[in-house]
Amino acid sequence: MSDQEQIRKIEQLARLIRYHILVMTTRAGSGHPTSSLSSVELMACLLFGGIFRFDPDRPGHPNNDRLIFSKGHASPLFYALWAAAGKVSGEELLTFREFGSPLEGHPTAAFPYAEAATGSLGQGLAIGVGMALNAKYLDDLPYRTYVLLGDSEMAEGSQWESLQLAVHYKLENLVGIIDVNRLGQRGETLYGWDLAAYERRVSAFGWKTLLVDGHSIADTLAAYREALAVREVPVMLIAKTLKGKGVSFLENRNGWHGKTLGREECERALGELGEVDRSVRGEILRPEERRPKAAPPAGKAPEPVYPPGEPVATRRAYGNALARLYPRYPAIVGLDGEVGNSTYAEIFAKAHPERFFEMYIAEQNMAGAALGLCRRGKIPFVSTFAAFWTRAFDQIRMAQYSAPNVKYVGSHAGVSIGEDGPSQMGLEDIALFRTILNGVVLYPADALSTERLVEEAARHEGMVYIRTTRMATPLLYGPEERFPIGGCKVLRRSEKDAAVVVAAGVTLHEALAAHEILSREGILVRVIDLYSVQPLDEAALREAALATGVVITVEDHHAAGGIGEAVGGALASLGVPVFSLAAVRMPKSGKPQELLDYEGISRTAIVQKVKACLALARKGGPQAL
Amino acid sequence: MSDQEQIRKIEQLARLIRYHILVMTTRAGSGHPTSSLSSVELMACLLFGGIFRFDPDRPGHPNNDRLIFSKGHASPLFYALWAAAGKVSGEELLTFREFGSPLEGHPTAAFPYAEAATGSLGQGLAIGVGMALNAKYLDDLPYRTYVLLGDSEMAEGSQWESLQLAVHYKLENLVGIIDVNRLGQRGETLYGWDLAAYERRVSAFGWKTLLVDGHSIADTLAAYREALAVREVPVMLIAKTLKGKGVSFLENRNGWHGKTLGREECERALGELGEVDRSVRGEILRPEERRPKAAPPAGKAPEPVYPPGEPVATRRAYGNALARLYPRYPAIVGLDGEVGNSTYAEIFAKAHPERFFEMYIAEQNMAGAALGLCRRGKIPFVSTFAAFWTRAFDQIRMAQYSAPNVKYVGSHAGVSIGEDGPSQMGLEDIALFRTILNGVVLYPADALSTERLVEEAARHEGMVYIRTTRMATPLLYGPEERFPIGGCKVLRRSEKDAAVVVAAGVTLHEALAAHEILSREGILVRVIDLYSVQPLDEAALREAALATGVVITVEDHHAAGGIGEAVGGALASLGVPVFSLAAVRMPKSGKPQELLDYEGISRTAIVQKVKACLALARKGGPQAL
Repeated sequence: MSDQEQIRKIEQLARLIRYHILVMTTRAGSGHPTSSLSSVELMACLLFGGIFRFDPDRPGHPNNDRLIFSKGHASPLFYALWAAAGKVSGEELLTFREFGSPLEGHPTAAFPYAEAATGSLGQGLAIGVGMALNAKYLDDLPYRTYVLLGDSEMAEGSQWESLQLAVHYKLENLVGIIDVNRLGQRGETLYGWDLAAYERRVSAFGWKTLLVDGHSIADTLAAYREALAVREVPVMLIAKTLKGKGVSFLENRNGWHGKTLGREECERALGELGEVDRSVRGEILRPEERRPKAAPPAGKAPEPVYPPGEPVATRRAYGNALARLYPRYPAIVGLDGEVGNSTYAEIFAKAHPERFFEMYIAEQNMAGAALGLCRRGKIPFVSTFAAFWTRAFDQIRMAQYSAPNVKYVGSHAGVSIGEDGPSQMGLEDIALFRTILNGVVLYPADALSTERLVEEAARHEGMVYIRTTRMATPLLYGPEERFPIGGCKVLRRSEKDAAVVVAAGVTLHEALAAHEILSREGILVRVIDLYSVQPLDEAALREAALATGVVITVEDHHAAGGIGEAVGGALASLGVPVFSLAAVRMPKSGKPQELLDYEGISRTAIVQKVKACLALARKGGPQAL
Repeated sequence: MSDQEQIRKIEQLARLIRYHILVMTTRAGSGHPTSSLSSVELMACLLFGGIFRFDPDRPGHPNNDRLIFSKGHASPLFYALWAAAGKVSGEELLTFREFGSPLEGHPTAAFPYAEAATGSLGQGLAIGVGMALNAKYLDDLPYRTYVLLGDSEMAEGSQWESLQLAVHYKLENLVGIIDVNRLGQRGETLYGWDLAAYERRVSAFGWKTLLVDGHSIADTLAAYREALAVREVPVMLIAKTLKGKGVSFLENRNGWHGKTLGREECERALGELGEVDRSVRGEILRPEERRPKAAPPAGKAPEPVYPPGEPVATRRAYGNALARLYPRYPAIVGLDGEVGNSTYAEIFAKAHPERFFEMYIAEQNMAGAALGLCRRGKIPFVSTFAAFWTRAFDQIRMAQYSAPNVKYVGSHAGVSIGEDGPSQMGLEDIALFRTILNGVVLYPADALSTERLVEEAARHEGMVYIRTTRMATPLLYGPEERFPIGGCKVLRRSEKDAAVVVAAGVTLHEALAAHEILSREGILVRVIDLYSVQPLDEAALREAALATGVVITVEDHHAAGGIGEAVGGALASLGVPVFSLAAVRMPKSGKPQELLDYEGISRTAIVQKVKACLALARKGGPQAL
């Protein structure tokens, strides 16, 4: 095919794609036609201009190029592209945004060609970083990752995190395309059509930049070809485009963001497109038939060994576990946000440096890259302080719509970190991670349960959060003990238990100490290690609640969304009273034990609460509590 | 004082400051001496070199220059500076990191010279943007805002959000100082001592950059003087420094981050400082005696008017309310993240453009700037989609340690937004904001209660979150109704209520519809509008729970951390069963009513749940539920 023929073919395809965009959004009555229309040539050239390599019949092919729509609201274009490729029918397109359709308002895992769910802006580039890291450093494959970016979303700081890490890791296999259509949701963007403003910033961050007329097929194809030849640095196409391109009354007009056309307007718009050949289909180059670099076969991991009687911090056990387990789970990858000597990700990094990526203090990009890695078949364990996961929670929230398999680890949980003070205390992390649908929340209290739970996390397909503790805690379990997700351990139990104390992590040790104090006074309580906060062992909790008549939860976390509310929710229909001890006072610096006392979550507080419950119960039974 | 004398004086002060840093951290046994030592000259020159203007006896003076330690772990330096200024005693310094001391591990509002709590990195510059916006656009004061930044934290995307907005708003009154000491927590930073790497990036973003030898007093003073003369653009000093400067065995050594010296090491280090004059005190220039531009006196706001029978979206009522209330609360400022035509912040922006700041799609900087504005006496109302507050939750979490007065508004709550799909649905926002200690969470169901609650938020001193709904909802209340924080409204009530349904926002309308359906079948239920989700009206809930024996909560939000768990927690000691209906299935695109049905939070689901409860109760009372 000559260049002229290729251009004519892409023009034809562009018309077809515009037709689909207009028809499907008009039919849906909502969506973003104008944001889609500006990127049509950019995407048609990429897919159908001999640049992109992808086997449409095998979207999971390990050497397919990857395409991420960071501007997820351009989903009509995304779906129309795959229609032009022959993989989505015209009828299917008309289900856009309907309940049950894989063509959701913004792309999700329901659509097989979506590499990840997008729609919260500024996240696609980080996912691309993860996929590009995988190609270059893990799978050793030549596939490229392309990310379509909106100009408005370049205001998100997360983008600049990704830009800097992509250069650090020399990701020449990552290509971004900024669709500079000048208009955001409610007016002009920060830089309008000042392409040089983007060029200055992006190239200062070390990327190769290419300015493009985003509606010139020849210009765009030339830029992509140039991008393919760049080595050692990632490439950004910065394309001048018109929002609403192709329809005179939409082009470059404010007030048309996220608005669809009426039926008559649509007819008018279609008329402007000229003749549309609905039978034309674009050809996508096939990828080289290469397989990922062979991972070592899954081998054996040694058993964990901890001398009894020697306290160990669960954060350290996490590092030990990851390093130990890698031979058994060779898909494991470690990432950390420049605190590996605190989270103890460094133990893994030292043992398996080729499987570890330092992601610096840029948690949003780290979370996005982890998602990208898991979408390429890896099991990323990604760690920082529990408090700092709040920084990346939009990325974490969005991950759940991408069929994810990321393991998040948060160290330095709770006030028990002590002197560093509230800025470093993870006091909201359980609440945050509990909101993830099907998300698992694990909170070990000793080194051995940590070791087992890290393995459970590696085995479990899905999102898992592991909460670790700064201070060393005594061993509670032997190597024979198992810790299934959704289980719990009843550590103290008698026939005469007057209450059940449910705890996890550092407060479990307080609960055990309280048990000892109380038993010296003849008061017996049941003590449960709720190492699996979500899902939780409803049956065991119900049994204990009914047996004792009073439940007391204790946690080094705020009350809202924490263990108390989780347990309360699980038992809410029982009619058994549940009392929550949690960090409810403004936290501050101090010694760990001082702070546990101050917050009313120490052994002393537990003893008091148990006694108060008993006193009330004597007066009139649980209903009087 | 000649230049030479000034330099000698600063050298003396620098020695004293280093002395304090070493002594206080050694005594505390934790903290960050080396990160403090690198910035000593940078800060001593600023405060005591005739640059900074501040009345130490009146830290609240409106025209004081502002100093924010974004690298909050350099708190020993921060406290030592104020000791050198004569405002903190040597004895007080020795309480560093002790329980109850205002000298916390990282600065918090407990220390009167801290403009804001810091310690989670990459947040100080945004707070500075807010303070500089206030000076230039609201108070019309010449004070400057200085922000000390670490080199490691420049990896946070939030920094680049602030850099871009500071240029957009031409904040020449904002000065950043990057302490490039090369070493992060676990090793070298991304760019080490490559000062040009920072210069390229920061100047590409439009800042004036000045490279400095951060240990040369003459050089540093000259740079500050140059900064004072810059117009129209903010200024960044990029300073080459040595981590641990002044102590031979700490200087530029890895492995000393966040580590303190032993007693003997400390003696050795002090010996290296030379003679320390503990009586020397630094002089700080006083600010000009200027008052903020007079705000209009608090006037009257018109009453809200909504024609009965005409549904109105609460998000629109929010915009109306803010525009209407400004005359009564002239400290109000509006901020929005480029979605003002969706949150309806645009109604305020159009009515009072001089009080509105467009913050573009950069939620982290927006949250930080709002904190800065409230710390300068303003009442910022800051809005975006509820879902996107997850993006700034580290900034929101940190705000609670700064004695804040920010009003966050999240629109597009829940699955009821419909076709746009999960990326745009706020399903975690209640859980997030409920974790804020003393935080208020409001969730109005109609236009009039929205109007009243916006006023309550403006009046309340503290952090408030207001959740609004995309779709129009019918009016429920008349203009005479009042909605105190911590209250609720019992909308349906009889002596024979078989259950109480607690709802808020969109599900309240479903609950009212369910009431109607049920009452036609002779089943009566109580219906409560829980517009104040936090604090909640425990007394009213208890009364209703005891009167009916069954509580059913319904919310367009995930179960974890939501209304159900809040109500369950409040009633946990009662022994009355609480059932939660919440969005617990993977959300998707669809029509609002389809999605309410799909999630089991529609009128149909409520009717079913009530009947199921009654059937079970007939079999054996609440305990059998």
